[in-house]
Amino acid sequence: MVPLAIAGAALINTGLGRARGSAQSALGSLCILAIAAIAYIAVGCAWEGYSGLPQHTVLIAGKPWGWLADLPFFLRSRQLDGSSASLAALLQIFGVALAALIPWGSGAGRWRLRAGCFSTAIFAGLVYPLFAHWVWGGGWLAQLGANYGLGRGFADAAGSGTMQVTGGLTALAVVWITGPRYGKFYRDEPPAVFPAHQIGYALFGCLLALAGWIGLNGAGSLLFAGIAPGRIVVVAVNTVLCASGALVTALFVTSFRFGKPDASLCVNGWVAGLAASSSICAFVPPAAALLIGLMLGGAVPFLSEFLELRLNIDDPSGGITMHAAGGLWGLFALGFMGRFGVPVAGQLLAQIAGIATLLGFVLPFTYALNWLLNRVVCFRASADAEQAGMDMHELGAGAYPDFVVYTDDSPMR
Amino acid sequence: MVPLAIAGAALINTGLGRARGSAQSALGSLCILAIAAIAYIAVGCAWEGYSGLPQHTVLIAGKPWGWLADLPFFLRSRQLDGSSASLAALLQIFGVALAALIPWGSGAGRWRLRAGCFSTAIFAGLVYPLFAHWVWGGGWLAQLGANYGLGRGFADAAGSGTMQVTGGLTALAVVWITGPRYGKFYRDEPPAVFPAHQIGYALFGCLLALAGWIGLNGAGSLLFAGIAPGRIVVVAVNTVLCASGALVTALFVTSFRFGKPDASLCVNGWVAGLAASSSICAFVPPAAALLIGLMLGGAVPFLSEFLELRLNIDDPSGGITMHAAGGLWGLFALGFMGRFGVPVAGQLLAQIAGIATLLGFVLPFTYALNWLLNRVVCFRASADAEQAGMDMHELGAGAYPDFVVYTDDSPMR
Amino acid sequence: MVPLAIAGAALINTGLGRARGSAQSALGSLCILAIAAIAYIAVGCAWEGYSGLPQHTVLIAGKPWGWLADLPFFLRSRQLDGSSASLAALLQIFGVALAALIPWGSGAGRWRLRAGCFSTAIFAGLVYPLFAHWVWGGGWLAQLGANYGLGRGFADAAGSGTMQVTGGLTALAVVWITGPRYGKFYRDEPPAVFPAHQIGYALFGCLLALAGWIGLNGAGSLLFAGIAPGRIVVVAVNTVLCASGALVTALFVTSFRFGKPDASLCVNGWVAGLAASSSICAFVPPAAALLIGLMLGGAVPFLSEFLELRLNIDDPSGGITMHAAGGLWGLFALGFMGRFGVPVAGQLLAQIAGIATLLGFVLPFTYALNWLLNRVVCFRASADAEQAGMDMHELGAGAYPDFVVYTDDSPMR
Repeated sequence: MVPLAIAGAALINTGLGRARGSAQSALGSLCILAIAAIAYIAVGCAWEGYSGLPQHTVLIAGKPWGWLADLPFFLRSRQLDGSSASLAALLQIFGVALAALIPWGSGAGRWRLRAGCFSTAIFAGLVYPLFAHWVWGGGWLAQLGANYGLGRGFADAAGSGTMQVTGGLTALAVVWITGPRYGKFYRDEPPAVFPAHQIGYALFGCLLALAGWIGLNGAGSLLFAGIAPGRIVVVAVNTVLCASGALVTALFVTSFRFGKPDASLCVNGWVAGLAASSSICAFVPPAAALLIGLMLGGAVPFLSEFLELRLNIDDPSGGITMHAAGGLWGLFALGFMGRFGVPVAGQLLAQIAGIATLLGFVLPFTYALNWLLNRVVCFRASADAEQAGMDMHELGAGAYPDFVVYTDDSPMR
Repeated sequence: MVPLAIAGAALINTGLGRARGSAQSALGSLCILAIAAIAYIAVGCAWEGYSGLPQHTVLIAGKPWGWLADLPFFLRSRQLDGSSASLAALLQIFGVALAALIPWGSGAGRWRLRAGCFSTAIFAGLVYPLFAHWVWGGGWLAQLGANYGLGRGFADAAGSGTMQVTGGLTALAVVWITGPRYGKFYRDEPPAVFPAHQIGYALFGCLLALAGWIGLNGAGSLLFAGIAPGRIVVVAVNTVLCASGALVTALFVTSFRFGKPDASLCVNGWVAGLAASSSICAFVPPAAALLIGLMLGGAVPFLSEFLELRLNIDDPSGGITMHAAGGLWGLFALGFMGRFGVPVAGQLLAQIAGIATLLGFVLPFTYALNWLLNRVVCFRASADAEQAGMDMHELGAGAYPDFVVYTDDSPMR
Repeated sequence: MVPLAIAGAALINTGLGRARGSAQSALGSLCILAIAAIAYIAVGCAWEGYSGLPQHTVLIAGKPWGWLADLPFFLRSRQLDGSSASLAALLQIFGVALAALIPWGSGAGRWRLRAGCFSTAIFAGLVYPLFAHWVWGGGWLAQLGANYGLGRGFADAAGSGTMQVTGGLTALAVVWITGPRYGKFYRDEPPAVFPAHQIGYALFGCLLALAGWIGLNGAGSLLFAGIAPGRIVVVAVNTVLCASGALVTALFVTSFRFGKPDASLCVNGWVAGLAASSSICAFVPPAAALLIGLMLGGAVPFLSEFLELRLNIDDPSGGITMHAAGGLWGLFALGFMGRFGVPVAGQLLAQIAGIATLLGFVLPFTYALNWLLNRVVCFRASADAEQAGMDMHELGAGAYPDFVVYTDDSPMR
């Protein structure tokens, strides 16, 4: 069921973008899945490893810090026989592709397809596996518990940190490098609104994403949090409740602020709830999952506004809010609401160490890699290309050739 | 896979409605899922219970009649460990949301989002759990067999009654309370036709719904009918055949009556077949499932016509026909075609008792609750709002801002 | 999850066709699923049988050649209890429907719905079961190993031959019989281009198809190739890598040839990779699956061009390339890259025998049956009908009544 999360994310990206770039958005989603899968299986999962498999370690203050796995490429070392290590590799093909779709949605409308493909290869081959090794591959963040007594080490049941936040921070890096779409920010005027061209796609994508996320969270909790199989019930219930809670408060907050609910921000709230659920799902009771979602959803509209109005970030899909902020909140909330049977303070410190690593290392690292890539493969389409639409410019054909579509020459509704 | 049934139902609702209300329809589907999930987990499943768990009973003529479960809220009593009771709670999160989507489709184009949300909370928190307790929670309808020797009591493998008919009857109540869309019925003229704005959505939704329904029927048959796991094969085959049969006769009947097949009525036929399959799937051989579907599909077009022309009911999605009529037919057919190893007469009486309860108690009950709700939260949008479209009125934005869409000022095709 | 492959294929068919025939395309997909399911369960699976069940055999040169199973209709002989034979019947309901959708996509825009329904009944009731019996029902192709020492007999883990190639060759037969759409080939002018009317549907369909295909390949490998359950991991990885590889080279080749990537051909490449994966998935390591996909995807654009320019075949969905060519390549590649633990030469001969049977027997057989059917139920819509669109002609209603759509009188984009 996990591929449905990818299908859902692709629909959300495409639906929240503009009609003139929707074919490029959809084709890019498929390409990103393909390239992420190849890069991850080819090299990524060799560097990520799995708990208990060989890794490179350095001794720091007498404690071993694992920083990279040491396995042959193309899964050759692993018996693909249903073992946990092989199932983890399979699951993360989709997990890494899901994470790689986040920047694609945020860069929509001006990021070139070729650049997106190369950026995905770097992400799936290097950035993701490195951090995932630290968390799930027996690396130093996982060892914080054994080495320093910080709870059970940095806990992330099903990828709030490894997938959602790494993807979301990469989206932030890409958006910084690529810049906003032409016409978005113009002098002191309020930012232009480019409405979702098919909000129905995005909302339907939310439903599909739920199905995929239940699979993702269930499988991740089994493989990386070691829950008993029967506990998948609570994982699934928590996933639904966290997303539902976030949607409900996003609906309320936008209704009160704007007089009417904002469907795009509701989509963002829902997905942020899903992103947060990935860490907490295995460790909290249902009522807590609902509460975590309710708190998150209320913050999403304000955060989106802050990013757009204060930081002048142009994020068409809201990927940074949905995935980075949602995931970070989940990781943090897990620190004080998770039931691990260990002292709360230690676990909270471990969670903060993980969050600090994401913000202090992963963000600069992915920014630097994409900055370098931008020197080689120009990220940004030309102004003319943007005006004509990424579909015409990059694919030579529109997404809706049989329909009458508004152009910049015609009045917008 | 069960969330796919919700995704399918949402697509069917949106596709069969009009373009000017499609964003509201899609956003409402997501909201209804969220609110149904929260309400059901918070209180609903505590009142529904599960066979063998504590319940309130009254003694009538010396026999105990269970009428409400007696469990703490928020699933706190249950070990969420993969037990049947916990799996049943998980399954019904989606089941109750699926049922709550039925009125949303029938009220499309004039029912306000806020009213739909509150109505869903009442449905998922009270109406559904009450009836479901009687059928699946060890309540009096399930006890008819033990108490009065009526076969094995009212049988409903996977929710034809509990989900489809309760949802379908609530749709009927909502449509009665809300009234038809403006312009639908005008004096003695034939009813206006508002064609499905994206029939492709609805047809694709049928395919997704099948996938979801197989999961729903399989899980329901395991949890509520106690079949052996291997019998899921026959459940799945029956689900496909019942829907297929209903589609084929709906296709034939509309072809003969109108000269050309009617795609909307074919959608209605297919989903009616699915709704009927939920009761029979565990208890009949494949050929009988096909026959039950064939008989149902032929009646769907006539029933739709009867509701529209004779009763002046404006049901854009056909939800009443699809779910209420389809589900009732499945429950009834099960009475004389089911293979229970008990006398047919007793089982048929038990089925009729269940159907009578649905029509004689659930329908007035849900009507009364929604009638009261309508006093508090006005169901009906204003005439101006309807004219402008629910999207513009309730969300302040259309679903297709980049496309040129026909308005009432432009000639309809 | 297998129904998702059907949903994906239906979306691909509809998306790659024209707006004016999209309702007919979508309705046809649902009808074809229904009719294929009924025909297959009613008679098809009685003639296909399953390894070890009774069959008709003829003695040729002292060796028994099984040619048709000998079972009662409507699954009556089989215990529907989760046995392999019953699971195989369930899986193939969807498999045969998936195969029957291939001609429907290729005949889009001029093939009449009624003809498609009858053709599906013949396909699912006779053509598919006959060949599937030979491969999976213990028939003569499967016996090639035991009888003549050709490896382990013709190997097809999950339906590259039985589903994809039989469907793809039937598509070729239908296209030959029906002829190209009016205006496609006009004298010596280059063929007219009818662009995909919603390429986003097709690309999203690719994502859904992947989810379905993983289920299909996993289940098929278990039931027909006898792999250990844990090996499903490698099956899933291979499925993803084969499709991903094919997409990547299709993307590269179209980018180099046309200057810009062609989204439709990328869809064709992806699905061709899926079709090829169905045979190889259980028998090769991941790196080989990727290589097989990479080689296939590069050939897809050339093959499409060859069919269109040289053979004047008008295949709107590219079904012949995707399924027939992709499947044949998978069967052939399996001959020399599969790891069976038997001599390569014998296995390669068995694979070639199977391919020869497909081209030398199945293609003429399905052509003859459809040719006969065309005498009874005219395949081809009239020129006027095509001009007005299959939607208006066959259903009396368009698919997008609320949208302004280009007609032949308006300038095409």
